Amino acid sequence: MPRCLITTVPFGERNNFPLEMLEANDISFLINPHNRKLTEEQLIELVSNNVESIVAGTEPITRRVMEAAPKLRHISRVGIGLDSVDLLAARDLGIKVSYTPDAPAPAVAELTIGLMLSLLRGVHLSNAELHQGKWTRYFGRRIAEVTIGIIGVGRIGSRVLRRLGAFGTPRLLVNDVLPNLELNREFKLEWASKDVIYREADLISLHVPLTSRTFGMIGSDQLAMMKSDALLVNTSRGGIIQEDALFNSLKSGHLGGAAIDVFENEPYSGDLSSIERCLLTAHMGSMSLDCRTRMEIEATEEAIRFMLGKALLSEVPEDEYKVQEFHLRSEKIQHELLN
Amino acid sequence: MPRCLITTVPFGERNNFPLEMLEANDISFLINPHNRKLTEEQLIELVSNNVESIVAGTEPITRRVMEAAPKLRHISRVGIGLDSVDLLAARDLGIKVSYTPDAPAPAVAELTIGLMLSLLRGVHLSNAELHQGKWTRYFGRRIAEVTIGIIGVGRIGSRVLRRLGAFGTPRLLVNDVLPNLELNREFKLEWASKDVIYREADLISLHVPLTSRTFGMIGSDQLAMMKSDALLVNTSRGGIIQEDALFNSLKSGHLGGAAIDVFENEPYSGDLSSIERCLLTAHMGSMSLDCRTRMEIEATEEAIRFMLGKALLSEVPEDEYKVQEFHLRSEKIQHELLN
Repeated sequence: MPRCLITTVPFGERNNFPLEMLEANDISFLINPHNRKLTEEQLIELVSNNVESIVAGTEPITRRVMEAAPKLRHISRVGIGLDSVDLLAARDLGIKVSYTPDAPAPAVAELTIGLMLSLLRGVHLSNAELHQGKWTRYFGRRIAEVTIGIIGVGRIGSRVLRRLGAFGTPRLLVNDVLPNLELNREFKLEWASKDVIYREADLISLHVPLTSRTFGMIGSDQLAMMKSDALLVNTSRGGIIQEDALFNSLKSGHLGGAAIDVFENEPYSGDLSSIERCLLTAHMGSMSLDCRTRMEIEATEEAIRFMLGKALLSEVPEDEYKVQEFHLRSEKIQHELLN
Repeated sequence: MPRCLITTVPFGERNNFPLEMLEANDISFLINPHNRKLTEEQLIELVSNNVESIVAGTEPITRRVMEAAPKLRHISRVGIGLDSVDLLAARDLGIKVSYTPDAPAPAVAELTIGLMLSLLRGVHLSNAELHQGKWTRYFGRRIAEVTIGIIGVGRIGSRVLRRLGAFGTPRLLVNDVLPNLELNREFKLEWASKDVIYREADLISLHVPLTSRTFGMIGSDQLAMMKSDALLVNTSRGGIIQEDALFNSLKSGHLGGAAIDVFENEPYSGDLSSIERCLLTAHMGSMSLDCRTRMEIEATEEAIRFMLGKALLSEVPEDEYKVQEFHLRSEKIQHELLN
C-alpha cells in the first residue's frame, strides 16, 4: 500500500526525477490512476489506510477526504492555489500543508501574455478559419494602443506587468486588496477600483486567488459594465468568472473575446466551446517544462522531508489559514442574517 | 476615370482619413473592386489610361503592368517589402516608387511574439481541441528555456529581440547579410550561420525580405537539419519557406510546429490547412489598427504629394534598386552558365 499518493496528472512524465527521489528513499507511491482531476469521492477511495502524504493538484481535499485517511499527516500542493484544500480541517486533524508558491509564476505570466496577444490580433480566429479554407485578415490592436486592467498584482500579476513593459506603454489600471505601492516605482500605473477597470479597460486580466470573496466575482452585471469590444483573460482559477454569464454575454455579441484557461469543473466541457472568439486552453498556465518540473520536484522533496521526519521548508503561512477562517466566519454571519 | 488606384484591401475601413485626404484634394480614386489580392492580369485591366499613382499592396506590379498604364508615374507601397514591384522597370519607365518602411515594424514584431508564445505552449492545439470538447494539457516551454534563432535583424527582427528580453534570457542566435554589431551592445547574442541556426535553434523566426536569394531559402534540406521538435515562425514573406517541403516535413511528424502568416499565393488555400500543429494566420503582421492606419496615411500622403507636384518624402532608397539589379545579374549569369 502506498505511503504517498500523487493526485496531480500528468506527473513525472517529462522529467521523472521526482519519482526517482521517492524510489531512492524507499517510499511507496501511487499516481492518480484515473488520469484526470479527481472528484471528492474518487479521492476518498484512493486515500487508503496507509497514505501519509498527498502530492496534490487542485482536486477537493475536504474534511471528508482527510477523515477517510487516518494516517494522512501532510498535504504537499504542486502549485500555489489553496482553494482546493480545507486548511481549517487540516489544522483540526493535525495535517500539515505545504505548497510551491513561486515555481508556477513565470510560466503563468508568459502564457497570459501569449493569450493577450492572440486575443488582440485575432490569431485564434484566423487560425480556425484558415484550417477550414477561409481567409480573413483580422484587424487588431497593439498592447501599446489599449488600456489594460490587471486585477491582482501579486506573484503572477506583477510578472505580467513586467513583460507588458517590452511592448510599449499601455495605460495600466491595477487593483488588489492591499495596494502594493512599491509597484509604482517600477511601473507607470494607476490604482483603480474593480468597477473602473470593468468600465475602462480594453483588456482585463485576472490574477487573484479563488476565495469565497472572488468566487463568482465576474457575473452578468460586471460583464455588462465592460466595453462592447473588451477582451477578458482568466489564467487564475475557474469559478471567478461565472461561466454561464460569460457564455450568455459572448453569445449576445458583447465583448470582443475572451481567453479562458481555468474552469469551475475540469476537464471542461461546456457551452463556451461553441463560441469561436472564446480562446480556450486546458489549465496550462504552469505547464512549461521548467516550471512544472520545479513544482513537482519541490512538492515531492517536501513530502519526502515529511516522511523522513525532517523539517518542512515551504509550509503554507499563517495568513492563508486566516483568510479561510475569515471567509468561513463571513459565510456564517451571512447565513445567520438570512435565516 | 480614377487618377489614383488603391490596390491593397482592406483600405480606409477602420479609419477613412486617407480617403478624406484624397477627396479634400479633388483626386479621383478607385479601391480594388475584387476585394482580394490582385493578379497581374487583374491589375493590367484596372490600371486604366488615367491612373497616375498606385497606392499598392503586395500584388505583382511588373513591367507589363507598368506598360499597360501610360500615365502611371508613381507607386506608393503601403508597407515595406518591395519584392512585388519591378524597381528596374519602374526606373526605365520614369515611375517613382515610395514606401512606408517604419510603420509596420512594431505590429509585425508583436504578432511574431504572440505566435511564438502560442507555438511554445500549444495554445492553438488546446483551443482547437477544447472547441471539439477534448481536454489535453499540453506541456510547453518558456522563452527563457529555449534557443531562439532570428534570421534577419533589421527593422522587425531587432524589435522582436527587444520584446523577447522581457521574458528572461534565452540563447539568441542571429544571422543577417551584414552583421549589425551595434546590436551586441543592446542584446546578449551570438552571430551564427543560417546552418547553425537551423541545427541548434528550438525556435526559428524569419525576418528577411523576399529576394531571388531568399526565395525558397528553406526547403526540405534545411527543414531536415532542424531539431525534431523545432518550431518555425514566418511573418516575413511567403515563398521564403517552400510550402510543399514544410507540409511534407510536418506531415511526416518532423518539427514541433510552425506558425505561418505569409504565403506564396494569397489568399492561401493549400495543404498546410490540414496540419493542426501548423498555426495559420492571414497575413496579419501589419494589421494592427495604429500601424495599418499609419501605413495607409503615409502612403496616401505620398501619392497626394506626387499628384500635387510636391517633393516626395519617402522614396525607396538607391540600395533597394541595387539589390534588384544584383539579383537580376546573378540570374543572368546563372542562366548563361547553365545554357
